[in-house]
Amino acid sequence: MSISPLAPAQFPEMPPVAGVRFATAAAGIRYAGRTDVLLALFQEATTVAGVFTRSRCPSAPVDWCRAHLKGGHAAALVDNSGNANAFTGRHGRDSTRITAQLVARAAGCRDSQVFLASTGVIGEPLDATRFGTVMGDLVTSAAPGGWQNAAKAIMTTDTFPKGAAAIARFGATPVTVCGIAKGAGMIAPDMATMLSFVFTDAPISPRILQNLLKQGVTDTFNAVTIDGDTSTSDTLLAFATGAAAAREMQKITALSDPRLPAMRKAFDAVLGNLAEQVARDGEGASKLLEIIVEGAVSKSSARKIALSIANSPLVKTAIAGEDANWGRVVMAVGKAGEPADRDRLSIWFGGVRVAHKGERDPDYDERAVSSVMKKPEILLKVALGIGRGRDRVLTCDLTKEYVAINGDYRS
Amino acid sequence: MSISPLAPAQFPEMPPVAGVRFATAAAGIRYAGRTDVLLALFQEATTVAGVFTRSRCPSAPVDWCRAHLKGGHAAALVDNSGNANAFTGRHGRDSTRITAQLVARAAGCRDSQVFLASTGVIGEPLDATRFGTVMGDLVTSAAPGGWQNAAKAIMTTDTFPKGAAAIARFGATPVTVCGIAKGAGMIAPDMATMLSFVFTDAPISPRILQNLLKQGVTDTFNAVTIDGDTSTSDTLLAFATGAAAAREMQKITALSDPRLPAMRKAFDAVLGNLAEQVARDGEGASKLLEIIVEGAVSKSSARKIALSIANSPLVKTAIAGEDANWGRVVMAVGKAGEPADRDRLSIWFGGVRVAHKGERDPDYDERAVSSVMKKPEILLKVALGIGRGRDRVLTCDLTKEYVAINGDYRS
Repeated sequence: MSISPLAPAQFPEMPPVAGVRFATAAAGIRYAGRTDVLLALFQEATTVAGVFTRSRCPSAPVDWCRAHLKGGHAAALVDNSGNANAFTGRHGRDSTRITAQLVARAAGCRDSQVFLASTGVIGEPLDATRFGTVMGDLVTSAAPGGWQNAAKAIMTTDTFPKGAAAIARFGATPVTVCGIAKGAGMIAPDMATMLSFVFTDAPISPRILQNLLKQGVTDTFNAVTIDGDTSTSDTLLAFATGAAAAREMQKITALSDPRLPAMRKAFDAVLGNLAEQVARDGEGASKLLEIIVEGAVSKSSARKIALSIANSPLVKTAIAGEDANWGRVVMAVGKAGEPADRDRLSIWFGGVRVAHKGERDPDYDERAVSSVMKKPEILLKVALGIGRGRDRVLTCDLTKEYVAINGDYRS
Repeated sequence: MSISPLAPAQFPEMPPVAGVRFATAAAGIRYAGRTDVLLALFQEATTVAGVFTRSRCPSAPVDWCRAHLKGGHAAALVDNSGNANAFTGRHGRDSTRITAQLVARAAGCRDSQVFLASTGVIGEPLDATRFGTVMGDLVTSAAPGGWQNAAKAIMTTDTFPKGAAAIARFGATPVTVCGIAKGAGMIAPDMATMLSFVFTDAPISPRILQNLLKQGVTDTFNAVTIDGDTSTSDTLLAFATGAAAAREMQKITALSDPRLPAMRKAFDAVLGNLAEQVARDGEGASKLLEIIVEGAVSKSSARKIALSIANSPLVKTAIAGEDANWGRVVMAVGKAGEPADRDRLSIWFGGVRVAHKGERDPDYDERAVSSVMKKPEILLKVALGIGRGRDRVLTCDLTKEYVAINGDYRS
């Protein structure tokens, strides 16, 4: 599969996060000739937080993580690609337990501090012994950094590895926030990504870490959609090793902590960057579409309208065809079920207003719009003119390649 | 464009409906070399009922029909294809008024008894004078029957004309219910069809006719989805000429009328048949997919889950690829947000149970399923095992042809 035309030019420079070590292996779970297992080992007292799919049929690893998040601490993370261990019944539950035991034995930690994520085909039993054969080597070889290898091991139909980093400074103490993600298809709120892991060396209590994640996803991963489908496996985990405490950084334990806004800014930057990369790697994507809805009755109403546009197959195919078909945008606004007044609606592609107050813009220049539509990144703005609610969503177009990828995924 | 592989072998035999005359013309609104205007003229005292799109941005003809439905009587119907007269502002409102006046003048009726429907591109002004040039001839040439020509004139991206007929017998008095429809894309509840018109010679009061339509759409047009998109123009109108009164049939004016169940049966048969033809002509469709959800907490919950499956791009592309990917069905059940228990879920393709109580069926024979998936009509059944709610939805697969048709519609 060729790399998405919307991919960043290169994998970013990412510093190691003190207290985190990575290793990858090729366990042959589904793919041949590539890594498919990622192990992350954390220093003692690393805290953990998580946000998961809202699917009523979550995968076994999602159940496992939810159950063990209560403890608030993590020693290891194991991710595999190629098999989602979802809808695998008792076997799936056994598989998560056995995997955690294997890791715990090899890494010398408690089962309950092992976090798990799996992505790939749903409904196929996952053979946990596959992990057994590689676990000893993984633990031995785990080392700081190696972000790109880590990001590669978790890919499924992704065409490029996804990483992002940010630094927050507290006086003389810089702390690092680094994340990796995989996405590509079945990406829709909520959660918008299938899998993403964020790591920081800042010392943060589990409760505050959870707050950072929960607030952070709203305008990042939850504002990205590829096809409106929601995975059974969507998982976003954050790990705070606290290694910066050695550099005299006090633990962040309260929402009133004056350092929290800077931490939040770094978190949001990483989450936002990763979420955008997920949209850029939408299955078969040839265009990145940024949709801004303003003048709605509320932010949440603007979000619903923006998602209705972003998930409309007719809008998405028009974008693929470089057709500024604002009539379909009107259709998608109309079907959202949110307050809207047809006769106040205005629509822009790029900077070009194509519709104004319920009619085609009289000054609408087809050539100007046509040049906007040829670009790989397109901004679509809708002004409803009935309130002050505003929101933004990212998506991609719907191409024949999407159908090809998903019409022939399993066979 | 080639005819859908799911099309019926031929247009059905349909008797004329006494009191209805049709004429068609090529007004060159958008298409060359084909008819694009349909005129229907009704005998005096014909009653009318209608169900319309729930879009917040309805087309001008939808506004027009809604406003004039109150009168309960119709003298004429004018439909054009190629231009939806939607999002056309004051010009669009003027256009509906001028069209109704042109028809009223030519046919000798009141403007308010002219009903209008338009389908095609959204946002382009519709030049009402186009109707003026053909209206005289249309009125002169209007004649009973001619269903196939009527059905052809209203087509846009449809690949075949859609008609259906049923007879209800009341002692010695048979009455006829005949309908035509157009659909193809942008078909989703509610209303599921873009345009459908149903005609009967039974004498029925406007209130009872409305009841027949409203109840009839629930399990027919509102149980069909192509792409989850909802048109600004969806219109279903029913006209009852009352010509059977000449054969001594008394008017049906009460819900308690003992003849109503037989009328309802005939109506539902026509609506159901037309709705299925719309699914069979889904843009780019290669498979008809019937989805039955049972064991849900209620019929409405079963409907939501069935629609979540039917609108899932990942399910639809799997069907296109003849892949019995029941994992994606689980995903779609999970994302519906309705009560479901992963560990009680069972799934069948055709008669073959592929998943049982939350796991792959141990007796699952890949070859048996593979032969089911090769057929043009596929039944997908999901049993939730938590209640007695049951519902059924029709849809089609998502193919590269859908993307091709919609990525290059306007240009």
